[in-house]
Amino acid sequence: MAKPPSKTDLRREALRDRLIDHAEALIASKGLAALKARDLAGLAGCSVGAIYTVFADLNELVMAVNGRTFRRLGAAVSASLGAREMSAQDSLITMSHAYLHFAAANTKAWRALFDLEMSQDSAVPQWYLAELAALFGLISAPLQRIFPDWPAPQIDLMTRALFSSVHGIVLLGLEKRISGVPVDRIEQMIAVVLANVTRAP
Amino acid sequence: MAKPPSKTDLRREALRDRLIDHAEALIASKGLAALKARDLAGLAGCSVGAIYTVFADLNELVMAVNGRTFRRLGAAVSASLGAREMSAQDSLITMSHAYLHFAAANTKAWRALFDLEMSQDSAVPQWYLAELAALFGLISAPLQRIFPDWPAPQIDLMTRALFSSVHGIVLLGLEKRISGVPVDRIEQMIAVVLANVTRAP
Repeated sequence: MAKPPSKTDLRREALRDRLIDHAEALIASKGLAALKARDLAGLAGCSVGAIYTVFADLNELVMAVNGRTFRRLGAAVSASLGAREMSAQDSLITMSHAYLHFAAANTKAWRALFDLEMSQDSAVPQWYLAELAALFGLISAPLQRIFPDWPAPQIDLMTRALFSSVHGIVLLGLEKRISGVPVDRIEQMIAVVLANVTRAP
Repeated sequence: MAKPPSKTDLRREALRDRLIDHAEALIASKGLAALKARDLAGLAGCSVGAIYTVFADLNELVMAVNGRTFRRLGAAVSASLGAREMSAQDSLITMSHAYLHFAAANTKAWRALFDLEMSQDSAVPQWYLAELAALFGLISAPLQRIFPDWPAPQIDLMTRALFSSVHGIVLLGLEKRISGVPVDRIEQMIAVVLANVTRAP
């Protein structure tokens, strides 16, 4: 039988959860750049040093917050498909619009997913890779229906390219960059680009 | 006859240029976030206060640097077309690859173009809008050849959507985000997306 968690373990676990809660709220309201160890410690009622007894560094804490955001994003995109039957093209467009709406409603948390330094080379947690694979799986499934003859690496590359394209349209659009798509037409543009890319060959 | 510039005018002009030169070098080597008034003053041999006699704030200085970057970017994209005759599709792909190569070779300066806060609502200099219109003109010209029946607003929206799509592919690809396109295949993905979007209807 596994040893039951000690009081110390439970306290550490509770501190960890509390820090993630506060970091999540701070990122959602003020953005990633505003996250400071001192503020977090004050909110969580611990010393600055105590943060580093449960996280290696602030990046690891942000990764935990991003994990929550990522799961909410995945759930929103997945839920958008609903129980309706729809064409492969329509499901891609529907999911992209769900991505846009999630990004619009959770802009700062969504930006933190991409603003955190995390290269292919540095260590990325297994659970993060699993979330990512699940999200990409939602995109590649309809692509396989549209392009049944494509080998897996080609589907994979198109999956990433379409995700990046929609991300770019949403990013520049939501930031109201003058180089971007006017906000009220972001949906329309996603649909036009996706409908054209995914016309059966 | 216009009054010749006074010694004070010339000194101000020289300080302005020197500050832009140093800010440009700092952004290119360390990125926008590393730009500090104190460092700039040290490099330009002036007081911190003197910076604000020639620029309203650091944002205005960064805009001047971004103006230079923007002109270099426009020149690189424009030059990529060369004197060769090419199809409308090929010119879109060629220009996008030039965009990728410029971004890869000038990553920090290119990022500063987008990381500077600049919404549609805030004042954007006229020269910036002119540079932007010129860049978008390079994209809309081949689109008009592909879709001769489209009204101008539809061409304009597709221009912005394609720019944003290519930007997203380049951005996530160059950052080696695990969610992005593997770097060595960015070119290939741009070509696939653009070729599909711009197939004649």
